[in-house]
Order: sequence, then C-alpha cells, then structure tokens
Amino acid sequence: MSVLFENACAVLMDEKNTVLEGAFVAVEGDKISYVGTDRPQGTFDQVIDAAGKVLMPGLVNAHTHVPMTLMRGYGDGNNLQDWLTKFIFPVEDKWDCRAIHSATALGLAEMIMSGTTCLADMYMFCDEICQEVAAAGINANIARGVTAFDPAADFSTWTSCVETRELVDKWHGYNNGQIRIDACLHGEYTSFSAPQLWDSVAQYAKEKGLGMHIHISETKTEHEECVSRWGMTPVQVMEKHGLWDVRAIAAHCVWTTQDDWAIMAEHGVSAIHNPCSNLKLGSGVAPVIGMRKAGINVALGTDGVSSNNTTDLFEDMKIAAMLQNGVEHDPLALLPSDALRMATVNGAKALGRNTGRIAVGCDADLILVDFDHINLMPRHDVISNLVYAAHGCDVSMNMCRGKVIYKDGEFLTIDIDRVKHEVKEYALPLLFG
Amino acid sequence: MSVLFENACAVLMDEKNTVLEGAFVAVEGDKISYVGTDRPQGTFDQVIDAAGKVLMPGLVNAHTHVPMTLMRGYGDGNNLQDWLTKFIFPVEDKWDCRAIHSATALGLAEMIMSGTTCLADMYMFCDEICQEVAAAGINANIARGVTAFDPAADFSTWTSCVETRELVDKWHGYNNGQIRIDACLHGEYTSFSAPQLWDSVAQYAKEKGLGMHIHISETKTEHEECVSRWGMTPVQVMEKHGLWDVRAIAAHCVWTTQDDWAIMAEHGVSAIHNPCSNLKLGSGVAPVIGMRKAGINVALGTDGVSSNNTTDLFEDMKIAAMLQNGVEHDPLALLPSDALRMATVNGAKALGRNTGRIAVGCDADLILVDFDHINLMPRHDVISNLVYAAHGCDVSMNMCRGKVIYKDGEFLTIDIDRVKHEVKEYALPLLFG
Repeated sequence: MSVLFENACAVLMDEKNTVLEGAFVAVEGDKISYVGTDRPQGTFDQVIDAAGKVLMPGLVNAHTHVPMTLMRGYGDGNNLQDWLTKFIFPVEDKWDCRAIHSATALGLAEMIMSGTTCLADMYMFCDEICQEVAAAGINANIARGVTAFDPAADFSTWTSCVETRELVDKWHGYNNGQIRIDACLHGEYTSFSAPQLWDSVAQYAKEKGLGMHIHISETKTEHEECVSRWGMTPVQVMEKHGLWDVRAIAAHCVWTTQDDWAIMAEHGVSAIHNPCSNLKLGSGVAPVIGMRKAGINVALGTDGVSSNNTTDLFEDMKIAAMLQNGVEHDPLALLPSDALRMATVNGAKALGRNTGRIAVGCDADLILVDFDHINLMPRHDVISNLVYAAHGCDVSMNMCRGKVIYKDGEFLTIDIDRVKHEVKEYALPLLFG
Repeated sequence: MSVLFENACAVLMDEKNTVLEGAFVAVEGDKISYVGTDRPQGTFDQVIDAAGKVLMPGLVNAHTHVPMTLMRGYGDGNNLQDWLTKFIFPVEDKWDCRAIHSATALGLAEMIMSGTTCLADMYMFCDEICQEVAAAGINANIARGVTAFDPAADFSTWTSCVETRELVDKWHGYNNGQIRIDACLHGEYTSFSAPQLWDSVAQYAKEKGLGMHIHISETKTEHEECVSRWGMTPVQVMEKHGLWDVRAIAAHCVWTTQDDWAIMAEHGVSAIHNPCSNLKLGSGVAPVIGMRKAGINVALGTDGVSSNNTTDLFEDMKIAAMLQNGVEHDPLALLPSDALRMATVNGAKALGRNTGRIAVGCDADLILVDFDHINLMPRHDVISNLVYAAHGCDVSMNMCRGKVIYKDGEFLTIDIDRVKHEVKEYALPLLFG
C-alpha cells in the first residue's frame, strides 16, 4: 500500500522545526518514503489532498493507563486517600477480560480521534489490551505494572512477573514493532517490601532488550517516604538496582532533585511530564526546565483518564507550554516548539521508536489538523497555533504505520457503536452497578 | 417566540449545583419561564429534544479583547517588551473600521461555537464592535479602554473619553440589555500621567450607573512600579479615586495583596482570573484561593487571543480548576463545581447580569453539550465531565436571550464564509501585509 499526501503544510519536527509549505509526503508500506516540494515519481494507491490542513507527526502519549477511561470523573472531589481506597481500588477489583476489552477500545478511540499515534501504557490485563491495540492499529509500548506487598515475592512465580514474561513471548515486536512490551515496576512505594524483584526485573529487561516503565517521585509523600526508608530518592534507589541500565521512562518526576537529574541524564532516562494529572491531583509542578537544562529527554503523557480527565494530548501540550512560563515568570521558559517536540520526537525517543518526525525511513505515523477551523485562523505561526490554539477535535485524520485508522469523524478500525454498547450494557454495570 | 427543551439533563447552577435529570426548561421571549421535571402547560413555537445532551447556562467570558483574534500567535516566542512594541502595537496602529468588523465577527464566532453567551470586552473601535455584537446576538459588556500618556488629558475632550460617552448614548441598554457599556481605565500603568482622568471616569460611571472594567496587577513590574509611584498598590490607588464605588471588574489581580483583597471584598469588586494568559505570558499564578477566602467574587476570562491563544472558555475553566490544586498541593483546593461557578454565575454577577443560571426569570442564555461524544463517556459526574473533560467543540447549540444563534456547527446570525473571506482578503493584508 502506498499513499501520497499533496498540497500539505508539513511540520517535519527536524532539528530546525521546519514547516514545509506545498509539501509532498509519500508513504510506502509502514514507512515514510519521500518528503519534498516536488511531486515524487511513480503512482500511488491513494492520494490525499491536504490543502488547508497541516500534516504533522502523530502525538506520542508516553504515560497512560488506558482502561481507566471508564473511571472518568469517578470519585472526583474526594481527597487522594479516599479517592484511591473508596473509589478506584474497589472498582479495579471488579475488572474482567470482557470489560477490559471495551474499556480499552473506548480509550484508544479517544486517543486516536485526538491525534495520538503511539502510547506507553501501564496496567494489568495486558494481553487483552494488546489485542485491542493490535486491532485498532495504533502503536503502543505495553507494560504490566509490577507491584508487591509480600516480602516473599519471587520473579519466577509472582503473577505480574509471570504475566510480563508471557506478554513478551506473545507480543513483543508484534507487526514489525507496532507493539512492544516494556518491563515495569509500578513504583518504589508499591514494591518496597520486595526489593529483590527490582533486581530481577532489571536483569530480565537487560536479557530481553526491553525498555523500563516506572512511576517516579509523583507526590511529595512518595518521594519523602522513599528517602526515609532507604536514605536515597526513588531515582537513586532504582539506579542501585540497575533499573536505569536499559532505555527507561520515568513518569511524573515532580519531586526529583538536581542529583536525580544527573543520574537520569547519565543513564539516558526519559522523564514523562503529565501536567494535567499533576495539577489536578495536587501533586505539584514538575521541574521541566531544570530537567531539560540537565540534559534529560522530557516527553509528555496524559496519565489515566481518572486523573486528567481526558487523553487529548493537545491539551497537555498547551498546558505544559504555558505552565512552565507561568511558574518561572518567564514567557520564554518553554517555547511552543519545545512543547511540540515533547509531544512528538521526544516521546519517540523515550519509547525507543522511529516515529515523531516526518523524514524518510520513519514510521508513517501522521495526522492532519484542519486549519480551516475558526480557532486556527489566522495562521501567523503554524507551530504556535498547533500548541496554543488547536484542540484534539481539529484532527481530521490519523494514520498509524501507513494505514489510515481515523478520518473525518469515522473510526476505520474500531466499531465504535459496538464498543459504546458494550461499555454501557456490560462494563459499567459490572464495575459500578 | 417560545421554546421548550425536553429530556434534558439540566445543570442549574443554583446554590446546590443541582443536576436535574429528565428536565423540561421553557423559554418565553428572552427569559427562562419554566424549569421542572413535569412537562409545562401550553404550546411552544419550537421543541428541542435534549436527549443525550447536557443543558447548562452559557459561559461568561469576563475579560477579553475580541478584535485581537487576528493576532493569534503573532510574535509568539519573543519577550514581552519586543512582543508588544515590535509586533502588537505596530499592528494595532493599522486598524480601520472595516477590519475591526471582520475581526470581531471572527472572534465572536469562535466564542459562540465554544459555548460563550456573554462577554466583557475592552478595546477601541467600540461602535463597530457593538454593531457586530448586536448582529451576532451574543450578550456583551463593552468598554472603551482609556489610556493617557499626556498630563493635560481632559475628560471633556480626550478621545477615548469622548468615545465612551458616545457609546453610552448610543448602545447602553440596547435590546433590553443585550449590550451594556462599562466605564473603563485600561490600567494605572497606562494612565498614571493623567490621574485627573481617574476621578472623571469614576464620577461619570456613578452618574450614568455604569460598571467599571480595568486591568489590575497583571504583572509584577506593573504592580511594583505603581507602588513606587504612589506608595500604594493599583487596587489602593483606584480606591482613593473612587473607581470601586460602582460595580467593577478587575482583570488579572495576579500580584494583588491581602490588603487589596479586603478593599475589593468591601467594595464588591470582582476579580477576573485569566489563567491561560497569565501562564503563557509568564505573569504568574493569581491567588484565586486567597481571593475567594477573602470573600471576593472570582470570575473567569480568556483575555485576548494574542495571549491565550483561543477563546474556548472550557479550556480556561479546566486549567483554572487544576492550577490551584497544583500550586496549593491540594487536590480539593478548587473543586470542579467551583470552577464551573466561576465561568457562569460568578461571571454573571461580575458583569451585573441576570444570567449564568437556569432559573425562572433569568436571561435565556443556554447551551447544549453533547454527552454522546467519546471524551464525555462514561458520565459518573456531570459537572466533573464538564470541567475536566469537555471541550468547546462538544457544544452543539448556543442560545442567547432566547434565540438560537448556533446549532450543530452552523452559525445562524453570522455569515461565516463572508467573514473568513473579509479577514483573508482585506483585514490580514491591511494589518500584516
């Protein structure tokens, strides 16, 4: 299958943040095969006229928990402890495979329609999540969250570890890399009883060549309790246990220190900034400027829908851009182009993927944003409009790995009416009935 | 003209934040005439089936500069001084009446499609702005910004003062209150050369029974320079000159002090919080929690598009709600219902209007939000979904003063194709060509 975009205003996300007017972008199979202002040779199975639209790399949502879409707004207005123990945990106990399927499909649909082409998920029931990802056509790094409150937990028999190994065997590398499995610790604060697992998980990741996904220093309490337990911050503890010896994504990093940043930069650990979640839950404002200056790759995530409460990454991108300016009292603290890089090319780097840019050889993960919408007029600065003025609903097409999966409000890989019906008739009564 | 909404989930914005399922809401002329769960007697010119949708008061954007829509993103990425002096001011010098007309219509269209039914504007060319507001059918408090760098400026001859008086004579109270004219000072920092104008403007507002619209303590520099000039903060200076003796809206208030809050609370001055603008421009985070505790009515604004860069008030509402939680490290600092009140009933109070609620006798300023959209599923908590998960593009209908002016993507009072054409062919070349 080959596709040609013509008449595009293409935002390449190269090092110069080039915006190429009158661009032709060709796709061959699942890769971008041509970028330029001259029409490429040859014929194409499909020609897409991008006049009036901006063609850009799809967004990378580098930290989320897709099935939690069904908990949107559930228990909002309670303190964190009550919210978790009285609302979220009791519901999570009720999941079954069928409910996970429909919840995941609904969550993926929301991401796809708002321009995400790649995500990093951490949750449970990951085989079911992989099945839905495979069917939807979106790219994903999937991680089974490993927690352990039992000091005897052992990597060879501990359920979440066993599931991780099964996932790797079944799904890692699926469809030429559409799905990858990351190794995972949920966090220090949910596994400190069994630190032997940390070594095992790190060792396993190295053996299998996997990435690592972990929550780090999201809240002040989590950070400080770790320091009082070990005399070290979460970043430092995990360094000692080898979790940073592979490509790793550290979600949140709100309370990380300068010393932590040096460790993260040295090991190439990416920080995943989740501004909506951190603000809404009262966790704080992550030190994005400091981390960037320390040389850390900072990418962007929405976190789960129960703590955001959407997965429209355009919104997190805008808030990320504005928030640092506001708290630093500097209108140039984080430029629109910086925020756009966080949501594209930095996310790709964090997830170990060849996406997030429009360049020959990259995965053909592309979206069209309709600049004929009133909120995007006039167009003095394409990147500024994308970051500060665009919403997810301005996305008119989503292509993942060369395949159009969403176009003009229609899902081409998800039977959205069936999903809505399943959510309403089965999953919601199961979880909340 | 009478209209009946049936099968509505109605968010009343009464003191209990009631969400009324299976509601009937009737409109007679420009007022709400019935709210209840029984079908009202009589026949109606139009019946609107609101099944699957949420009926709520239209949003009140309590501080903006509509024509600046044409400067969306213009000069972004420059420091504040360069942005103003090299980009914004030179363009503003080029305005003519025709360009203002099309810029205003474009800006109003963006607000209408995203659910705003009432706004407070401060700019110049206000007669043209009033003409567009009148035609669009939206409600507006319009203020001619008074600035003066000439110590001899006199209220009887100074252009912006003369224009204010002409506006009041021509437009104040138009169409049973659709348009109101507010008296206005742009700010202390743009008129300190001619403090005699402050007394005259205050006196004129009292005589005519007008409200007052003014920028207050937006930036640290503005605030501190005022203190060094007068030994008083902007709020204190304006109190001395009588500007708080009428209903008043003070935009921004980022650097206001506890002493200022006591003055504002005593005089009933409303603070207009513009979170996106304050963050993006590096002004800071307004002390919303402190002002609310001090008894100040806090409402919400987008500010102009050049400093936001949209007028989708759903976005400012979400950011307002999350931001205070984040900087206070308290997930309950500002509840979703608090943020929704800021965008509706508090805005109505700030602007001296009988809107922002669904109650008999209120202005029929109503919007429908389509909860069949994926980002609003499931619906555990209607208000949480509206504040944290809804976008302006979920608005499917906008009714101002009993008249539907927007429905399912169509503008019923604005010829949007003509406006786009005028913007492209006339206004943009004039200002930026």
